[in-house]
Amino acid sequence: MSDRHPVALVGAGPGDPGLMTRRSLELIAGADVIFYDRLIPPEALDGAGPEAELVFVGKAPGQPGLGQDEINRRLVESGQAGLRVVRLKGGDPFLFGRGGEEAEALREAGLEFEVVPGVTAGVAASAYAGIPVTFRDWSAAVTFATGHEDPEKPRMEIEPDRLARMPGTIVIYMGLASLAGNTAALIRGGRPADQPVAVI
Amino acid sequence: MSDRHPVALVGAGPGDPGLMTRRSLELIAGADVIFYDRLIPPEALDGAGPEAELVFVGKAPGQPGLGQDEINRRLVESGQAGLRVVRLKGGDPFLFGRGGEEAEALREAGLEFEVVPGVTAGVAASAYAGIPVTFRDWSAAVTFATGHEDPEKPRMEIEPDRLARMPGTIVIYMGLASLAGNTAALIRGGRPADQPVAVI
Repeated sequence: MSDRHPVALVGAGPGDPGLMTRRSLELIAGADVIFYDRLIPPEALDGAGPEAELVFVGKAPGQPGLGQDEINRRLVESGQAGLRVVRLKGGDPFLFGRGGEEAEALREAGLEFEVVPGVTAGVAASAYAGIPVTFRDWSAAVTFATGHEDPEKPRMEIEPDRLARMPGTIVIYMGLASLAGNTAALIRGGRPADQPVAVI
Repeated sequence: MSDRHPVALVGAGPGDPGLMTRRSLELIAGADVIFYDRLIPPEALDGAGPEAELVFVGKAPGQPGLGQDEINRRLVESGQAGLRVVRLKGGDPFLFGRGGEEAEALREAGLEFEVVPGVTAGVAASAYAGIPVTFRDWSAAVTFATGHEDPEKPRMEIEPDRLARMPGTIVIYMGLASLAGNTAALIRGGRPADQPVAVI
C-alpha cells in the first residue's frame, strides 16, 4: 500500500470493471469506509476488505438520496475520525461527478485528500458503440455537457444554441429525459437535421 | 486471460501508472507485440511478457516518426499473422489519439479489434492541478480541443472565436507551441482577459 491521504475521491469508470484503474482498486482494498454511488460497476466493491464499511449514498431515479451537504459532512466526519475514506463515483469525480464540491468541503475542513481520475462514460460509451469522439478532419474537438442535473430542471444547463454552434462532437450526459427538447434546440441552433446522433 | 480479439487499441492513461486500467494491464501481459507511443507511462511496458516484441512507433518532437499509414499497415499485418497485438497510446485512443484511423484500417482489413478507453490527460492533469473541469454553477460543460496536431500547422484546428463563445471550461491539448496566439484569439472571441488559465 503506497502512501495515502485520509480521504480519496475516486472515479470507478463507466461501468465495465475492466476500466477501473489500478489506483482505484488499491484504495478500495485499503479503505475503512467506502461511500459509493449508484452508477459504479457492480463488481467495484468486490475488492473491499471484510471489515470495510460500505455506505450507499446514491440517488435512485425519482427518489431523493442523501443531499450533497450530508455527503460532504459524512466524508469530513470520517476523515477527521482517522478512517481511510474512499468516496467512489461512477466515471470521473470531476466530470459531472460533483467531486469539486466534495473537494471544497474537505479543503475547508483542513483534510488532505487525493483525487483519482476515472475513465468517463462519454468517451467510453461512445468507443464501445464504435464512435471515436474525435476523428481526423471530421471532429477536432468534443464538448461534454449535461442534459439535466436536477430532476426539477429537465433541460440543459447551458444554452443549446451556443452548444450547437460549437464545432465538433457533442456528448450530452444524462440526456435521455430531455432528448426531444435538446435535439430540437440543437437543430434550431444550426446543427443539420440529418447529422448523425447516437443514444447510448 | 479473458476472451480477446486479435488487435486491441488501448489507452494507457495520462502518465501516472496508477491510472492504467485493469484491462490494459491484462492485455499488455498477454500481448505478442506492442506498438507504443512516446507519451505512455514509463512503467507501462513493465508487465509485458519476456517474449513480447516492443515496437516504438511514436514521434519525438521535431522529428518525423512512422507515418500513420505505416502504423496502420503494421497493425494489420501483425493481426493477420495471428499475433496478439496491442496498440498502446497515451490517454484515450479516441480522444485526439488517432485511434479512429487505426480502427478504420483494421475494419477495412476485416480484423476484429477491441478498444480499451483510458483516462484522458485533459481531465486528469486538471484534477492533479486541483481544477475540476466541471463545477456546479461555474462550469456545466467542458470542451476538449487541440492546440495543434501537425507541427506544420501551429494553430488550433477549430476557430478560436467559436471556441471562445462556448460556455464552460476549455481544455486545449498540445497547446504550448500555440499558447500566445490561442490565448489572444480566445480573448478576441469574447473570453474575459482576466479569466483564469492554467498551463499544465
